[in-house]
Amino acid sequence: MTASLRGWRGPPGSPGRVAGVTTTTSLDLTADLTTLTAAVCDIASVSGDEAALADAVEAALGAYPHLEVLRDGDAVVARTHLGRDSRVVIAGHIDTVPLTTDPVNLPTRLEGEGADAVLWGRGTVDMKGGVAVQLALAAALTEPTRDVTWVFYDHEEVDASLNGLGRIAREHPEWLAADFAVLCEPTDAGLEGGCNGTLRAEVRVAGVAAHSARAWTGSNAIHSAAPVLARLAAYEPASVEVDGLVYREGLNAVTITGGIATNVVPDSCVVTVNYRFAPSRSVEEATAHVRDLMAGYEVVVTDAAAGARPGLDDPAAAEFAAAVLGVTGGAPAPKYGWTDVARFSALGVPAVNFGPGDPLLAHKDDERLPVAQLDLCRDALRAWLTA
Amino acid sequence: MTASLRGWRGPPGSPGRVAGVTTTTSLDLTADLTTLTAAVCDIASVSGDEAALADAVEAALGAYPHLEVLRDGDAVVARTHLGRDSRVVIAGHIDTVPLTTDPVNLPTRLEGEGADAVLWGRGTVDMKGGVAVQLALAAALTEPTRDVTWVFYDHEEVDASLNGLGRIAREHPEWLAADFAVLCEPTDAGLEGGCNGTLRAEVRVAGVAAHSARAWTGSNAIHSAAPVLARLAAYEPASVEVDGLVYREGLNAVTITGGIATNVVPDSCVVTVNYRFAPSRSVEEATAHVRDLMAGYEVVVTDAAAGARPGLDDPAAAEFAAAVLGVTGGAPAPKYGWTDVARFSALGVPAVNFGPGDPLLAHKDDERLPVAQLDLCRDALRAWLTA
Repeated sequence: MTASLRGWRGPPGSPGRVAGVTTTTSLDLTADLTTLTAAVCDIASVSGDEAALADAVEAALGAYPHLEVLRDGDAVVARTHLGRDSRVVIAGHIDTVPLTTDPVNLPTRLEGEGADAVLWGRGTVDMKGGVAVQLALAAALTEPTRDVTWVFYDHEEVDASLNGLGRIAREHPEWLAADFAVLCEPTDAGLEGGCNGTLRAEVRVAGVAAHSARAWTGSNAIHSAAPVLARLAAYEPASVEVDGLVYREGLNAVTITGGIATNVVPDSCVVTVNYRFAPSRSVEEATAHVRDLMAGYEVVVTDAAAGARPGLDDPAAAEFAAAVLGVTGGAPAPKYGWTDVARFSALGVPAVNFGPGDPLLAHKDDERLPVAQLDLCRDALRAWLTA
Repeated sequence: MTASLRGWRGPPGSPGRVAGVTTTTSLDLTADLTTLTAAVCDIASVSGDEAALADAVEAALGAYPHLEVLRDGDAVVARTHLGRDSRVVIAGHIDTVPLTTDPVNLPTRLEGEGADAVLWGRGTVDMKGGVAVQLALAAALTEPTRDVTWVFYDHEEVDASLNGLGRIAREHPEWLAADFAVLCEPTDAGLEGGCNGTLRAEVRVAGVAAHSARAWTGSNAIHSAAPVLARLAAYEPASVEVDGLVYREGLNAVTITGGIATNVVPDSCVVTVNYRFAPSRSVEEATAHVRDLMAGYEVVVTDAAAGARPGLDDPAAAEFAAAVLGVTGGAPAPKYGWTDVARFSALGVPAVNFGPGDPLLAHKDDERLPVAQLDLCRDALRAWLTA
């Protein structure tokens, strides 16, 4: 992991600007948003393979003298230094889940025309539409009313330990210093506050192995897991109001494994559960809740991350909500999935989700974006950043 | 699969006897049974790799002019042609499950002395002790009172479609023609009649996939499997008397799988059950029983084999039981595990299990044989074959 601070650059076209940067595709940040989104998508960037897109983003932003451009690994940060009273972070990840294979869902293709057009392909929803909005505004807003730190980061779709935003928070926390943050994850251009926490635990049920022809000499661990599944099936998830938004929880078995051969009474059955819990609960409280429900069974927590309160009572968030909803209409809603807003929350920075695309289409083979949402999101963010 | 009928051979040592047969180890069939068992075990013969042992068996038996020796693949058949009123088959498989790795459980080692000695190592129980008894008697009994067909076959410990006895039954059924059959699988030198049948079925539970952060948009297949496990846990297996022996049944989940990722509500959960059913039930009856128990769920039978009735009311079986139990004492017992006696049963040949070794130690890492059982089994079989 190397960080380079290239600092202020010369004007676009000056000979020294792209020294050390190799790109095979250049991005025109002044193009219409549909064209720009397609261009960003068409530089494939499955997690771990973001270098080409990071290079293109760095080179494109480097052409604008009002931006300081920083890089860490395949994360790119561009920020204004206008001495404004407040600074906001607007962030998005540049990686995607893998392409489909038959057929391959790249390059993108546009169906329909004008306001009804839909852009199909990997990344259109999660979340290169949001990245395109960020890039266009970063280039266009030379004098925003708030200083802005634009963050483009890698490795969001894989193990959390690799997450580029987490890496920056650990190694360059000052790059993320801000009064408020917006994560441009897909929200269907709605304002989604905070996020639920997530906890994974293994519920381990033991037995005694035996040949299945003499089962009475053993104890069947899969049979003994029946009450675990019964408790999960009977569980009524809560809905919890936090800062005015109602978060729906969920507690689900996500995997179950047991047995080593079809002639052996199994001595082990493991049910992995995933608890999505309201941001008003701590990881400790969530853990205790799962342990209570699974009383009598061994419970091993394998993974947990606190949620983020929506924080819409924060003045900076309220200003954002007023400006954005003035353009988009609608009302704030809770975010159910865990997102990187929780990383900002952990840094003490209120954060919300706001971006183009239907979150239910994220990671789907038929990922697609109504392009009208691109302009809507851009206009809403511009209204806020120029108010 | 090639079969060769070499027919009658010349006397031991004659130049043409081993033409076409390559062995690196020779077996002395006149050695004491502990030595012979160790020698048979020490020619490792994990399923699929039986050629060296089959070669050694074929060569050793070929040295005895009272035997006709046949070969098919790695199965060897040796038989007398004395014109007796009846013919019996005495059969055993020569393959074993894989060796252990740390430490390797071969070569065999002998612990203790005399009648208390125990022979440790792969195959001692399942079932090279029995094979050694067969080999010693095949060589020694030049004029048994019944014609005997000695069968040594391959591929018993793997998929049933590969089973050497099954192959002979299909391709050379006349080699197995007999009035009665003994399978020398381990029974602790007791007489075990017949065997339970076995049926495997997948109980498939469907759901609707969803992101686990929005679980209410899906339907959790693992949760829906709760009643399947509850029914199995509550199931009371029957004990069924057949021809005077009581067969304990069993119905067990042997594997369970569900879920594809820890953030996805699973749309599938599959419970594989293994039903061991009394030999008085047909496969069709066993299938109906499982379907009844799992009413409301999709049940797909993947594997089924009928059991074998003990048939101890058959005159040939009764003669065998009287002769053998006169030496060993004890009483006939049911065989719970499915064994190849069912193949004889399907051919209309009454068959029983009788061999040295504790069946509970079969396939175990600490497989070991009290050598006194070797002499006991040999003496019992000899009493029957010379009466």
